[in-house]
Amino acid sequence: MENKFTFAKALIHAAGDFIKDNMVQDLQIEEKTRFDDLVTNLDKATQELLITRIKQAYPNDNIMAEENNIHHPISDGNVWVLDPIDGTVNFVVQGANFAVMIAYYENGKGQFGLIYDVANDIMYSGGGQFDVYANDKRLTSYQDVALKRTLIGCNASMFSCNYCGIRDLVDQTLGVRVYGGAGLSMAYVMTGRLLAYFSYIQPWDYAAAKIMGEKLGYVLLTLDGKEPDFATRQKVMFVPKQKLSTIQTYLD
Amino acid sequence: MENKFTFAKALIHAAGDFIKDNMVQDLQIEEKTRFDDLVTNLDKATQELLITRIKQAYPNDNIMAEENNIHHPISDGNVWVLDPIDGTVNFVVQGANFAVMIAYYENGKGQFGLIYDVANDIMYSGGGQFDVYANDKRLTSYQDVALKRTLIGCNASMFSCNYCGIRDLVDQTLGVRVYGGAGLSMAYVMTGRLLAYFSYIQPWDYAAAKIMGEKLGYVLLTLDGKEPDFATRQKVMFVPKQKLSTIQTYLD
Repeated sequence: MENKFTFAKALIHAAGDFIKDNMVQDLQIEEKTRFDDLVTNLDKATQELLITRIKQAYPNDNIMAEENNIHHPISDGNVWVLDPIDGTVNFVVQGANFAVMIAYYENGKGQFGLIYDVANDIMYSGGGQFDVYANDKRLTSYQDVALKRTLIGCNASMFSCNYCGIRDLVDQTLGVRVYGGAGLSMAYVMTGRLLAYFSYIQPWDYAAAKIMGEKLGYVLLTLDGKEPDFATRQKVMFVPKQKLSTIQTYLD
Repeated sequence: MENKFTFAKALIHAAGDFIKDNMVQDLQIEEKTRFDDLVTNLDKATQELLITRIKQAYPNDNIMAEENNIHHPISDGNVWVLDPIDGTVNFVVQGANFAVMIAYYENGKGQFGLIYDVANDIMYSGGGQFDVYANDKRLTSYQDVALKRTLIGCNASMFSCNYCGIRDLVDQTLGVRVYGGAGLSMAYVMTGRLLAYFSYIQPWDYAAAKIMGEKLGYVLLTLDGKEPDFATRQKVMFVPKQKLSTIQTYLD
């Protein structure tokens, strides 16, 4: 597993370098389901790079990935879960605040996760048997903070419509932040910049953070407190386990 | 004016260094008007540092500043507008995403502005007779982009209640971002990460961005299209002049 983790860290750096080298050129932007659901040629090319190298190194391993409907079930064997560019809108508009994400599961059990903040060159990695780091700084487990001294990260529309009472929870805190990328928002939870994160996301959006977070005292659950299904888009929360019951008192 | 601008750049760096040197110690946090309106001992000490050095260098100049009710009128003589820590909540919770801001006005006319992103060591400066820079990179004037390829920065509650139709505008774009600091949000407008910014803010929150923005093709106006009063908290927008009429078609 040590070797696989080392391989994954080198791979995610290579993917980040590939994006940086190519993002200066004209992007080809496509609209998927609607005008604000974007994919670029670089999302696809980066996913290809990731898959090709994984298959070269581990030909019997399987892939679940964002683009091109590659959806091997999480519970079946060795599965790499890939999001080549998480936060594509930020990538397109800002050229920053996006991440490459890799998670590795064996028969449904998370072994390690990686979130690479390409623009800021910060790699969050670890989980399972590995300590969690932001580059060379080891992240510490969640330390309790009073709600009224925290911030909540959230999907804008779930906040706006007070979905499940999320805005009632936010009202107990110093406010909401909307950053537009699931991976980096969850990295900010793990570094204490946000207490919790709420969104409506896919397995490749939460797979890496879930593994790392569990090592640090966080849980990734659906809004009704169940394990996510790793198959469909779901409304989830990423919260400190120690704060879960407090948070749930504000949620419907 | 060249000398004063050079002085201001050195001063804002000194203020940032002072904050960085002292933020690791225990902050004393006070609640002002309510639990989410915070001030720390470092906000006050940094403002003192700024005022002391300005008064040493320019004893006849005047001050408008966030803390301690120092509110010299903008139209009267030489006025330094100071926000020692913009984004105090981010400062307290995140230790990042806050800024020191300085603006210099003569008889109501903006001469230059500075926004210093302390955690990332990025100083935005210029306006008036000076080109606008982010550190040593000169910022270019606004280049038109289609609404549907942009992001809007906004105060969370104004977005959430669709104040003046802001959410209707956001619905024409790729979405909203809530970063929690006026200064850095407006810096992101000037670097193209956001198309526009909407918030309910004080003169020291917008004084610097207004001067820099005007040099780059942006305007800082109240939501009904008037000049801000530099005296009270107002609902304002910071938008490309070229996009103002388009944006106004979505606002009530």
